[in-house]
Parts: sequence; C-alpha cells; structure tokens
Amino acid sequence: MTMLGYTVTIDGPFDEAVETVTKALATEGFGVISRIDLDKAFAEKIGADFRRYTILGACNPNLALKAVTARPDIGLLLPCNVTVEQAGQDCIVRIVDAGVMMQSGDLSGTPEIAEVASDAVERLTKVAAKLG
Amino acid sequence: MTMLGYTVTIDGPFDEAVETVTKALATEGFGVISRIDLDKAFAEKIGADFRRYTILGACNPNLALKAVTARPDIGLLLPCNVTVEQAGQDCIVRIVDAGVMMQSGDLSGTPEIAEVASDAVERLTKVAAKLG
Repeated sequence: MTMLGYTVTIDGPFDEAVETVTKALATEGFGVISRIDLDKAFAEKIGADFRRYTILGACNPNLALKAVTARPDIGLLLPCNVTVEQAGQDCIVRIVDAGVMMQSGDLSGTPEIAEVASDAVERLTKVAAKLG
Repeated sequence: MTMLGYTVTIDGPFDEAVETVTKALATEGFGVISRIDLDKAFAEKIGADFRRYTILGACNPNLALKAVTARPDIGLLLPCNVTVEQAGQDCIVRIVDAGVMMQSGDLSGTPEIAEVASDAVERLTKVAAKLG
C-alpha cells in the first residue's frame, strides 16, 4: 500500500498485465493516452539496468475537459498515472489516488475540481477493485 | 501564478513555444519523454473543441532513477509535467513545482526523495528563469 494510490498485484507476464490494466481502465472510461517505459528510457539515456517499469497515463476525456476548463493549470496534474512494475513472477500495479493529487496546490477554491476528483477517485477505485 | 508551479508567457506560435521549452528543459538534463496534445485528444475522443494545450512529460533520467530506486511508487508522480497552452497570440507555459508534487502522499520518511525533489526544483526553476 502506498499513500499515493492503490496497489494491486497481478501474477503473470508483464505485457499481459499492461493489457489487463488497460482493459480495466477502459471499463471506467479511461483511455491510455501516454506510455513511458521507464526501464527502456534508463537503458537508452544513461545505460542503467532497471526492472520493467511502465507508466501509463490514464485519461477520462470528459473529466479532463471539465477539469482543465475550470482550472487551466490542472494540466500539471494530468493524466492519472497507473504504473506496472515487474516483481519476480508478478507485476505490481499502482493506480494514483486522484484525491491525493488534487490536494497539491491551492485547488480548494474550485468546486468543479473537487467534483471531478471525487468522480475520478470513485472510478479508479472500481478499477483497482476489478484488478484486485 | 499557480500554486502548482511556475508560469511563463511566451509570445509567438504554439509549435515554436513547444520547441523553445523543450530546448530549455534539455539544458537542465530533462528530456521530453511523453507528449499529450490534450486538444487533439478531446477532439478525437469526445468531439470537443478546445484551444491548443500540450502536456510535455519532462524526465531527468538520473533523478528519476534515483527516485524510483528509493521509492518504487514514486512513478505515480513522474514525469514532471510542463504544459503549453494557447492564449491568443501568446502561449502560457507552466512548469510543475516538483516540491509541491512530492508533498503528496507520505514521502517524508525517504530522504533520497527530498534530495531528488530539491535538485529537480532547482533545475526547473532555472528553466523557468531562462524562459521568463
């Protein structure tokens, strides 16, 4: 468990875990809008060896549009990150807690942001439950 | 000014602004590791019209490796976002305050994270100064 989000362990190959997570996100209206293979980036940029570790940027376009319309600077906190990390034969999946993220900065004066965050939290909790 | 980061206004075309920002980030060892054109995503996914708005994922691989080695869940907060938003003839550039980000969750028990965050803040402040 991390204070930054939900943690779920999935057994089986890494690429299958990424696919499973992607499908679970889709059921709650989140598309994967960016993908960073951190291990590959480390290998390419600084020749460092690291276990497989992928950051998926999950975006529900309706929620994102509402958020960025209310607070254009909210793009600094988008998309919602979901990470997949190799751990032996298993994969550790972490899903960001959008509520914790939205505590960053002074967002309390914007009720639309609180609404969007609570909607996102509800959906991502369901995704975590589906995977768990 | 946003509580989430630094804001700089650049005059001139959007694509040039993105290029200028990318070059400024590179001088502090940050590569652009992901790019999300939010306006295009909104148009494609939900047919919504939005001004140009791009989220660049900036990553300094040495800092990221140090962070994710110390705290594997820190991937939920990576990369450092830099946004470029069309505003009439100008572009608003926002650079995340890595210090604010790292306040999310319970990261205080990990001194490596504090070190990395302070290094990132110093570098991103220089990038903002260079652009401002």
